[in-house]
Amino acid sequence: MRVSELRPFCLGLLERCSVPADDAALLVDSLLEAELKGVSSHGLNRLPTYVKRLKAQLVKATAEIITERDMGAIAVVDGNHSIPQVIGHRAMAMAIEKARRYGIGAVLAKNSGHFGMTSAYGLRAAEQNMIAVVLSNVTPLMPPAGGSSKLLGNNPLAVVAPTKGDPIVTDMGMSKVVLGKLLVAKSQGKKIPLDWALDKDGNPTDDPGEALQGLLLPIAGPKGYSLIVAIEILTGVLAGAYGWQVKSLYDFSAPENISHFFLAVDIKAFLPLEEYFSRIEDFRLGIKNSRKAPGTEEIYLPGEIELNRLKRAGTDPSIALPENVIKDLNAVAEEVGAKSLSAFA
Amino acid sequence: MRVSELRPFCLGLLERCSVPADDAALLVDSLLEAELKGVSSHGLNRLPTYVKRLKAQLVKATAEIITERDMGAIAVVDGNHSIPQVIGHRAMAMAIEKARRYGIGAVLAKNSGHFGMTSAYGLRAAEQNMIAVVLSNVTPLMPPAGGSSKLLGNNPLAVVAPTKGDPIVTDMGMSKVVLGKLLVAKSQGKKIPLDWALDKDGNPTDDPGEALQGLLLPIAGPKGYSLIVAIEILTGVLAGAYGWQVKSLYDFSAPENISHFFLAVDIKAFLPLEEYFSRIEDFRLGIKNSRKAPGTEEIYLPGEIELNRLKRAGTDPSIALPENVIKDLNAVAEEVGAKSLSAFA
Repeated sequence: MRVSELRPFCLGLLERCSVPADDAALLVDSLLEAELKGVSSHGLNRLPTYVKRLKAQLVKATAEIITERDMGAIAVVDGNHSIPQVIGHRAMAMAIEKARRYGIGAVLAKNSGHFGMTSAYGLRAAEQNMIAVVLSNVTPLMPPAGGSSKLLGNNPLAVVAPTKGDPIVTDMGMSKVVLGKLLVAKSQGKKIPLDWALDKDGNPTDDPGEALQGLLLPIAGPKGYSLIVAIEILTGVLAGAYGWQVKSLYDFSAPENISHFFLAVDIKAFLPLEEYFSRIEDFRLGIKNSRKAPGTEEIYLPGEIELNRLKRAGTDPSIALPENVIKDLNAVAEEVGAKSLSAFA
Repeated sequence: MRVSELRPFCLGLLERCSVPADDAALLVDSLLEAELKGVSSHGLNRLPTYVKRLKAQLVKATAEIITERDMGAIAVVDGNHSIPQVIGHRAMAMAIEKARRYGIGAVLAKNSGHFGMTSAYGLRAAEQNMIAVVLSNVTPLMPPAGGSSKLLGNNPLAVVAPTKGDPIVTDMGMSKVVLGKLLVAKSQGKKIPLDWALDKDGNPTDDPGEALQGLLLPIAGPKGYSLIVAIEILTGVLAGAYGWQVKSLYDFSAPENISHFFLAVDIKAFLPLEEYFSRIEDFRLGIKNSRKAPGTEEIYLPGEIELNRLKRAGTDPSIALPENVIKDLNAVAEEVGAKSLSAFA
């Protein structure tokens, strides 16, 4: 379906949940952007769940974000279970303001939830000639190194830096693979590598079915585990809900209690902007035009592939939604009394 | 040899290079601490090279560190090719001061060099009830994803957080393995996994000899590459010497031009300290006492193994130096006219 058809459908769902128009647009556009970047794991497949959480009042339709602390270059905001994307952009904007004044700014956001692509917030800072670091904790799916309990999340980390052209975007989770890859392997009857997951007892497994009942493993063994713990401390421990205290997006018994950490670095506090842009252009081109390994057609900067997809999408692009996503969207539309997708096609 | 014998020998070397006593002690103690933590890659094996660089005046014995910019919560210091460990601790101390005032503080240090264990600086912040993030670029050994040129360094990242007991210490490089592992495999005539390194033409190789002539590979494929690029931007691009512009510690034709980024986060700006310490204790114990995977004897927090080794070392521990390190230390002692190791034994 075309974006011009999908967008009003999605906005209609959120309108039925009493989400203010601006916040609804922010949320829907972030999901559409993820789809157009090819990151469908953070796209419209999430919307039915977001809507259900709104209806269940686990997420508040009207943002009531409280500034709990505001001291120099830092602030702590209580998202108060408002829409996570709204909390995130509000907090990032505060970090940007702080950085403009103090050279650097950090905002910790608590009582939030699954907020989509982590780099989306950093992109706002890059537009303001700032480098951003964004961290979040998420629902636990992984064990500590040597463990077999689901204690730690696939905590994402994003670093976004502006260039003369597209920003350079590091945006990564900390698991070796996402759950989706296990589902695909299972449906195809394939074995998986032994370093992807553990079974429910904590043994390495090459059976995707066992893995789905078990635990994901982090990238790079103890290094990935160390990174996840560091992110958990800067988000969950500072904010008050860490690791096993964070609830899943798909658990309708309680709020998620996810927290985020937003850091903005004002480049012009460190060096003249034109010098920065000339350097990062040289850095970018040095990588881009470097010698390829055999079999490589093109070398990409981090995030370049996704941003290229978005640019190529053009005006009113089409998004091919899987059957199950269409079904879920229509089901939730019926649930909230909104028009079905077919009414917009 | 005992630390009580090694220490005066090492200080003697630096004295012959006109390094002030306090700075010499800082440098030597950081190398001894790395040895006692079991991180001998950042221990006394580095000292002969440090001394040679001092004699060649590529590193200045007397610190002349210049505060180039000082604005709100950030500063930029020009290390001016002083001893990197001295630059690092000076810069971290400034970040801590900034954080005390503004809640968070960041210091970029340029014209520095190989500064030993990245977490050593963060530990100073943890002593002040702060969380630290420390980043550095280093000499390039790795290609971008899909590339075959040595453009990017094994850029380390450390995050150190205080607890009631030992701090939790994330301290990691970004290569799949260090060069030393290739040397060991080669000397044992063993093959290496295909994801450790590329040969000089950019092909995956299982021959450690070919790998040593080639390029190291990052952890986690494109994720590791993305992290390395992010660190390079926050250090080298901001500071003025990035990737291929950084020289090796073992290249005696030029200064290294390494740069570091120090971030201090003052915990008490975000929440009451006692609340933090009680939370992180619960977080630590939740991991420590969680269910073990089959075959695991104990679950460790990041950095715990190294800190345990240091504590177990006791007073005046012995360090077993490899033959080649002893030989290099004695050779450099002769070069600078200092007493040989045997004079202290």
